[in-house]
Amino acid sequence: MRVVVIGAVAAGMSAASQARRRDASAEVIVLEGGHDVSYGACGMPYNLSDPARDIDDLVVMTAAEFREARGIDLRTGHTVTAVDTAAKTVAVTPEGAPPYTLGYDKLIFATGARAFVPPLEGVDLEGVFVLRSLRDGARLKAALAGGGATRAVILGGGYIGLEMAESLTLRGLAVTLVEQAPTLLPGFEAPIVKRVAETLAAHGVAVHTGARVSQITRGDGGLTVHTDAARFEADLVLVAVGVRPNSALAEGAAIALGARGAIAVNARCETSAPDVYAAGDCAESLDRVSGQKVWVPLGTTANKQGKVAGANAVGADTSFAGIVSTAAFKVFELEVGRTGMGRSELSATGREAQFAASNQGSRASSYGHVERLDTVLCFDPDSGRLLGAQMAGREGVAGRINVFATALSAAMTLDDVASLDLAYAPPLAPVYDPVLIAAAVAQKAREGRRG
Amino acid sequence: MRVVVIGAVAAGMSAASQARRRDASAEVIVLEGGHDVSYGACGMPYNLSDPARDIDDLVVMTAAEFREARGIDLRTGHTVTAVDTAAKTVAVTPEGAPPYTLGYDKLIFATGARAFVPPLEGVDLEGVFVLRSLRDGARLKAALAGGGATRAVILGGGYIGLEMAESLTLRGLAVTLVEQAPTLLPGFEAPIVKRVAETLAAHGVAVHTGARVSQITRGDGGLTVHTDAARFEADLVLVAVGVRPNSALAEGAAIALGARGAIAVNARCETSAPDVYAAGDCAESLDRVSGQKVWVPLGTTANKQGKVAGANAVGADTSFAGIVSTAAFKVFELEVGRTGMGRSELSATGREAQFAASNQGSRASSYGHVERLDTVLCFDPDSGRLLGAQMAGREGVAGRINVFATALSAAMTLDDVASLDLAYAPPLAPVYDPVLIAAAVAQKAREGRRG
Repeated sequence: MRVVVIGAVAAGMSAASQARRRDASAEVIVLEGGHDVSYGACGMPYNLSDPARDIDDLVVMTAAEFREARGIDLRTGHTVTAVDTAAKTVAVTPEGAPPYTLGYDKLIFATGARAFVPPLEGVDLEGVFVLRSLRDGARLKAALAGGGATRAVILGGGYIGLEMAESLTLRGLAVTLVEQAPTLLPGFEAPIVKRVAETLAAHGVAVHTGARVSQITRGDGGLTVHTDAARFEADLVLVAVGVRPNSALAEGAAIALGARGAIAVNARCETSAPDVYAAGDCAESLDRVSGQKVWVPLGTTANKQGKVAGANAVGADTSFAGIVSTAAFKVFELEVGRTGMGRSELSATGREAQFAASNQGSRASSYGHVERLDTVLCFDPDSGRLLGAQMAGREGVAGRINVFATALSAAMTLDDVASLDLAYAPPLAPVYDPVLIAAAVAQKAREGRRG
Repeated sequence: MRVVVIGAVAAGMSAASQARRRDASAEVIVLEGGHDVSYGACGMPYNLSDPARDIDDLVVMTAAEFREARGIDLRTGHTVTAVDTAAKTVAVTPEGAPPYTLGYDKLIFATGARAFVPPLEGVDLEGVFVLRSLRDGARLKAALAGGGATRAVILGGGYIGLEMAESLTLRGLAVTLVEQAPTLLPGFEAPIVKRVAETLAAHGVAVHTGARVSQITRGDGGLTVHTDAARFEADLVLVAVGVRPNSALAEGAAIALGARGAIAVNARCETSAPDVYAAGDCAESLDRVSGQKVWVPLGTTANKQGKVAGANAVGADTSFAGIVSTAAFKVFELEVGRTGMGRSELSATGREAQFAASNQGSRASSYGHVERLDTVLCFDPDSGRLLGAQMAGREGVAGRINVFATALSAAMTLDDVASLDLAYAPPLAPVYDPVLIAAAVAQKAREGRRG
């Protein structure tokens, strides 16, 4: 029994480790084109902000540890160029050695996602970076270490763009953030976006939304980012306009693709080809709220899907329950989170919904130290079912977004959420927790519309 | 239509306000024996720790505001001495005025709970305090303001005892905590109790458990607390050994009592007498986990039950969903929370369960600033259903206890919890949130027991 895994980051190493753990007799081979394995890519902005830290600190477990401690045949620098699902083989090109063909009993795609680089003149100039792989991080860190960079332009106002705006500001750079959409954080509601914009402004990050970049040029003074509205000078440019699934290898093997070009999988992480699984950022997931397949590449899902694929590859029968699209990030002192559906998910599914915004204190007012939280709930006006939640504030956001995520998993209504028995103690929460107040405000908004 | 409410703190004022809001034509009369209304009793330890703050800062809304802004006939200093549910009248004794009888169409008991004072020699000496009402807080604050007190003994190692150990330590007193049970926090699991004990020790609080107090005496050097093991000198003694429901007035009116002597109510907060409701610390609640009636006097429940009773009194048909016994507190830098069943609830219901303890990091290790969280889950070994959770750590406890509370409300199994889609961002949580790790450890423990 031979299990072959393509890709050695979160999903790949979770799959390989799970297969190994469940079946000591299975031969587990992981093929990785690069040389970095099992690193926490989400930690890169925080590593980059600290000149004293080595980028390799982000490696959770080294290739040697996987080989020796876990008994996994991990082959780095081995690129898979083709998959034959009929012959059950993969074609491998190792660095500095002749290509070879490897047979498999079970195959797991864990090929991840890549940074999307728009077809933009000058995007390949020196000083223009993306941030996806550990190598990307190392290159950017080296550029910062030189000390010559004082001005950065970030293209893209999503999670990575915002986290990097903080990171580069902390490194002493003057940061300009350019977003093509009319607002930062497309898909987030106005009160949340406003909090983020205020936070960026307070830290001196210049934000230009609705700005379409036409080209990047290099002159004597460094790089220039040209938009339809203005030009921005920079010593370095970070392109953070999204990611795409690495599904070409699977597509080449006639494996079906699904949501947004990711590899189609069922709950068992099985693809359309027999004995072939996919997990992580290259694969789609079931959205438990809409019931539809979606592509939301996140580390949490990658780890969980990897486990499921690895277990099933060695004969288990486990399922991935799906996601509710929970995500959170921090930008300077502001925590932001979301779960479930927002306007973009609604328009993709053609579903109608109602929104209700509210603002709450994080603690009992008598205790003091009260931070303000902004919350927007999305719900079905007919059934009252909660469909999504977004929240921003300086503390306690992640925990409350997780409460909403749990409520979404249980298909709770606003009434269910409003009657939750949540913790109260003056230093920790007000007597009516922000979750309960948000639900009560939404109940009123729903009654108002129905009334 | 006249609604009479007995008691003017959390449940009473919630009930009166709700009745007023829903029925502008109803006459709403609140009878309160004392002079303090609508105060946040839970905030007292934090108010007491700050000499600069006035105890009246804890008043959320004054009697005058209720009367003028809300149009509620709030009568302070009016003690109800008897209720006649057949005649639908209450007997009232106002301060400095002749007693009178007041008829009602609907009556709401919101008589609260009182500090339990054990029948102990010397418990009525000067310098011995309880902490329940705002007056209790004012008395203690005045004693502290004198500045003469340097040594405090606290009887009782529950929430209030622990919060006051912090409060009095912050005021510069040397604090000794005496608990009769073998451990602090009876009902909490060993790993949680250990964290609390370590925290108290780090802040110089002396803890004596398994110590039965025989008497309190006063001599030249101040008070002495005598236990079977030792004597403790003190300038002030705080008795914090629990509370009891104020249900004697209801019992005197032949209204049925329920769990632990609290007034029996159904989901509509109706008592056994027609047109008579009860809400808050004087009333029992439905435990959604065990399906049994329990008495867990907490401010959150008081507010919610008050609303339900007030709404139903003026013709609405609302229900209180019940509780899952969620509670949290902070002692120095440690957050502690619990929800659902623990060993004491299990023994009360005769139910068997399994426990699994685990320890998790609060953040991605690559980010740093990782705090350790201790979690104990209680679950049904047969069905895998989650029955309870306890957690201690320096951050992020309340939010995670609320996730477990939500999971309990939805009757989730360990598998359901382990597959929740929770927020991940290095500054906020590790890729496997502590909630997920705790569930996975419990799954393994369950499998181990099932073999």
